[in-house]
Amino acid sequence: MRKFSESTIRRLSHYYRVLEEVAAEGQRMISSHLLAEREGITSAQVRKDLSYFGSFGRRGLGYNVDHLRTEIRAILGLDRRWRVAVVGAGHIGSALLAYRGFGDQGFDVVAVFDASPDRIGTRLGTIEVQDIARLPECTGIEMGVIATPVRAAQEVADMLVAAGVRGILNFAPRKLRVPEGIALRTVDMTMEFESLSFVLSQTRGPRRRRPEE
Amino acid sequence: MRKFSESTIRRLSHYYRVLEEVAAEGQRMISSHLLAEREGITSAQVRKDLSYFGSFGRRGLGYNVDHLRTEIRAILGLDRRWRVAVVGAGHIGSALLAYRGFGDQGFDVVAVFDASPDRIGTRLGTIEVQDIARLPECTGIEMGVIATPVRAAQEVADMLVAAGVRGILNFAPRKLRVPEGIALRTVDMTMEFESLSFVLSQTRGPRRRRPEE
Repeated sequence: MRKFSESTIRRLSHYYRVLEEVAAEGQRMISSHLLAEREGITSAQVRKDLSYFGSFGRRGLGYNVDHLRTEIRAILGLDRRWRVAVVGAGHIGSALLAYRGFGDQGFDVVAVFDASPDRIGTRLGTIEVQDIARLPECTGIEMGVIATPVRAAQEVADMLVAAGVRGILNFAPRKLRVPEGIALRTVDMTMEFESLSFVLSQTRGPRRRRPEE
Repeated sequence: MRKFSESTIRRLSHYYRVLEEVAAEGQRMISSHLLAEREGITSAQVRKDLSYFGSFGRRGLGYNVDHLRTEIRAILGLDRRWRVAVVGAGHIGSALLAYRGFGDQGFDVVAVFDASPDRIGTRLGTIEVQDIARLPECTGIEMGVIATPVRAAQEVADMLVAAGVRGILNFAPRKLRVPEGIALRTVDMTMEFESLSFVLSQTRGPRRRRPEE
């Protein structure tokens, strides 16, 4: 199968969300126009994206919602369960554990680790927090989440790779090094704020006062 | 000033982090090579990025850490404080309030709103959670964070815009509509997981069992 850009994969995720919604509403068919409208992109882009996966659509009728949903689910690897370990039992770790959506999409958090004696042995949801030192004994983990302080992030990444994970989602605001073949995604919330402050500074000037202030 | 791509802004954020680190270590000069090495990009890219902002570097000597840090801080709009309202006092909201880094970078959470009677009147950190119905009375907010369930996200976005925010950081897994001139960034954690599962599926095949399982 061809290589997809990250932005194509993101659009597929979005289409999948829209399809889940309209399926829940009982809709049987959906047009590329509607997939596009809900998504804020062009219908031509939708058709182009979906054409990579075969001819799901029928001219004038649109796409069969159930069929397209099933296909995209398989493409995104959501037609199976994934075993996820979370390292760091703070707020971010708790948010992940509390979010039902992950389980619904096939992501099962099967282990939580932390380095703090205060947290080890407590429970996050139904899962007991284990000592990070026990991570190397943990087998069968496919994805790891790094929700630790930044200073521990690279070491934890190395441990996760050694434990056999193939994908890492990193919440620590630092670029991590992982071997080739390991998929790494970083969610950096401070960077998102900085991206906003940059835009807001440019549009009004960083030091100018707003008259209403 | 010219328009910057989102990826350029992200690299600037990264350089800023590196500069903060090396400044803390007492280092006075830094080469584009070291900025690149820490960042996993080329030194030519670093020089190109930084050249937009004037000639900070001196051939053979590199960049003055304090000077470059001050310049990038101003470019990113981090040389002032930003007033932020958080809507949704759940795990994500709590994680934001608990994260010292935001305050250090100039982002002050000045108000927290929620719709749940169980949460209204409680405290998140030092801030009392207010009824979302009172958001329209709130003035002087520049950025809003949407950390609500997905079904409330668009309505909250509309309320934030009406209240005068110019930038929104959205954690709800839905694409939101905002008027032109409002900066919107979305952090979709499920989508990050889906991006990982897509890559992992492609490299091993979604339905193949691993021998060790």
